[in-house]
Amino acid sequence: MKRTSREIRTANRYRVLRQAIADSPVSRPRLAAATGLSTATVATLVGELAGLGLLVDAGYEDSGGGRPRGLVAVNPRGGTLVGVDVAETYVHAELFDLSWRALASSRRTLRPADLAPRRVVRVIAAAVRAVAEHRSAAGRRPLGVGISMPGVVDRTAGVSVVAPNWGWQDVPLLRLLAEHLPHQLFLDNPLHACLAAELWSGAARGRDDAVVVNLGTGVGAGLALGGELHRGAFNSAGEWGHTTLVLDGRACHCGRRGCVETYVGAPGIVRNLREMSPDSPLLSPDDDQTATIAALSRGCREGDPVAVKAVGESGAYLGAAVADLVNLLDPEIVVLSGWVAGQLGEPLLREVRAAVARQALRRPAGGAEIVLSPVAGASPVSLGAASFALEGVLAAPDRP
Amino acid sequence: MKRTSREIRTANRYRVLRQAIADSPVSRPRLAAATGLSTATVATLVGELAGLGLLVDAGYEDSGGGRPRGLVAVNPRGGTLVGVDVAETYVHAELFDLSWRALASSRRTLRPADLAPRRVVRVIAAAVRAVAEHRSAAGRRPLGVGISMPGVVDRTAGVSVVAPNWGWQDVPLLRLLAEHLPHQLFLDNPLHACLAAELWSGAARGRDDAVVVNLGTGVGAGLALGGELHRGAFNSAGEWGHTTLVLDGRACHCGRRGCVETYVGAPGIVRNLREMSPDSPLLSPDDDQTATIAALSRGCREGDPVAVKAVGESGAYLGAAVADLVNLLDPEIVVLSGWVAGQLGEPLLREVRAAVARQALRRPAGGAEIVLSPVAGASPVSLGAASFALEGVLAAPDRP
Repeated sequence: MKRTSREIRTANRYRVLRQAIADSPVSRPRLAAATGLSTATVATLVGELAGLGLLVDAGYEDSGGGRPRGLVAVNPRGGTLVGVDVAETYVHAELFDLSWRALASSRRTLRPADLAPRRVVRVIAAAVRAVAEHRSAAGRRPLGVGISMPGVVDRTAGVSVVAPNWGWQDVPLLRLLAEHLPHQLFLDNPLHACLAAELWSGAARGRDDAVVVNLGTGVGAGLALGGELHRGAFNSAGEWGHTTLVLDGRACHCGRRGCVETYVGAPGIVRNLREMSPDSPLLSPDDDQTATIAALSRGCREGDPVAVKAVGESGAYLGAAVADLVNLLDPEIVVLSGWVAGQLGEPLLREVRAAVARQALRRPAGGAEIVLSPVAGASPVSLGAASFALEGVLAAPDRP
Repeated sequence: MKRTSREIRTANRYRVLRQAIADSPVSRPRLAAATGLSTATVATLVGELAGLGLLVDAGYEDSGGGRPRGLVAVNPRGGTLVGVDVAETYVHAELFDLSWRALASSRRTLRPADLAPRRVVRVIAAAVRAVAEHRSAAGRRPLGVGISMPGVVDRTAGVSVVAPNWGWQDVPLLRLLAEHLPHQLFLDNPLHACLAAELWSGAARGRDDAVVVNLGTGVGAGLALGGELHRGAFNSAGEWGHTTLVLDGRACHCGRRGCVETYVGAPGIVRNLREMSPDSPLLSPDDDQTATIAALSRGCREGDPVAVKAVGESGAYLGAAVADLVNLLDPEIVVLSGWVAGQLGEPLLREVRAAVARQALRRPAGGAEIVLSPVAGASPVSLGAASFALEGVLAAPDRP
């Protein structure tokens, strides 16, 4: 988050384009009011974005007799973006236009035999080609491909530093992919992708300080502070899953005990259920966490008391942990994202809200909003990954 | 942390002046290199700071034959700043020059009979006058007075919203003080003061992401993200003392259980000692936490095994909590500040470093530095409070 003059200009380009996408068509003064930037700054930035072909003039606003105000809109032919969600068991690529409409998608399963770097690279390349060459992309300029990769990544070097579940170390992912793909390529991790999705097209857009809690097999908390992703010194801020919730509590695979993840990640929620009701028919017989979470979701909808209680307890753990985040960071909004939040939805949200109301320090105006992610589409991760490519283009607009 | 164009300009003024104070005298290109700002931006900002009388020309750098580079320096006659540390039992005012040299100080005890707002205001005004009218201030321009006030403050309105230990609610502190003092007045809380002290003259200067852990009777974590104070939506970010360290652990006065504060605040450390050794002679007979912490400090220096063990255990709790902060925020540096850190010093630091090394996720280059606050002088809080006034002047340079 070093703030050189150049980086401030880049961040302002993001802000103006995000707002223009949300409100398209929109006048420059309205963009200035919404972003807090001066009208002169907005005029300059809109000029740059138009020069990049991302925005176009779109007629005039009805001004009720005053001087008519020019409108700008997202350029419908301005280009396409590809986002790739590389997960442990699949690769999902999605094609977006500049309004974040999903135009095409492709999903491939990763088999245990596919997990050598060159095999995975071939699967990614095939998924990208499937969407980039889709007929809906015809006649549109490909702006870039963003890839979300689990583990520790070096986004500048384009390297997967550690992918623990595959045993990868220092795999030069983007260099290998460039042998297969002609596109500009960008790399980051799923936590940052979920946050970017909320910033570009979800609940964090236009907010100064937002926390995106990502609930899956692992858990993390993407931080948007001052309207931008807080990366930290080593691009690894947000490792909230391994903060202590219960000193000397459940053993975690990270080597510590009592980590948040062991109570509110999918396996933790399954364990909450199992400890409460060891013989519950909600428990998947072959220990499939996805199936058990889906069963809990159905059970809550149908009023099954064990499901309601297990989600209630899991929500209480999550609420205690979210209250800590709220106390520390004082965000405007907390967004619950990730597949577990998508599955457990409103019942989980209610418990979290209640726990935070009980446990966070009181603040004026009721404190932080807590919402479920509104990002539509198959995967917020692939939308967020696509936004890495858009951000990359905006950060280096002079690159050919 | 809303980043309007105006606020970015203000933040850049802070960065340039901080660096100029640290390196005075210094050339503009060196300031640009140190701050990451362009030379053109630095030249403009140096011009503004010179116009405000804060910087002056200071000759030329020996350039070894090339074109000589002009130097700028802090103006020794540029003005004075007063910082006031309003604590629960005393008021401490300190006078600083622009190089953060302490020129004079005044300390007054607050007796239980003094705690009505108008009485406290009179004590603060007397302390400020004592230093502002000190002979060392003669001939120097008073730039402003900053006040650090415990509890919740509304810095924009100048109001003490809640001061729980005194039963205050919505006291218009700055308006009442203005009846006694002719100075520009600025208000914020002690956590923000400790952080500002590190940013202006301590270990966080020039760092992008720093956490200042403030250990006293209460505890908090001031966050400097992107080189500036992260305030949060309600100016109350940093309430780290009330994050859960031990679910269902020790009861806390905030109503929750197991809060960090109950293990590593001064009363928590005293309790760690008492639970370990109920009859320890280190325990103050009249339950004076300051005396017990001082006894622990002496005990560690003298190798007393109970003192070493109690500080070790307290450091292990603190280290677990700091590891959580490091995982979540990935800062470059963690600074241990506050009177408890000052008293327990190196023995506490060693334990915290060891616990973080064991418990934080591994990161390249050994991860975050952990240091004791290097801020010299009677109180980092009064230095930080004085910097509120300097920041106020820089934020509104056109105010008369």
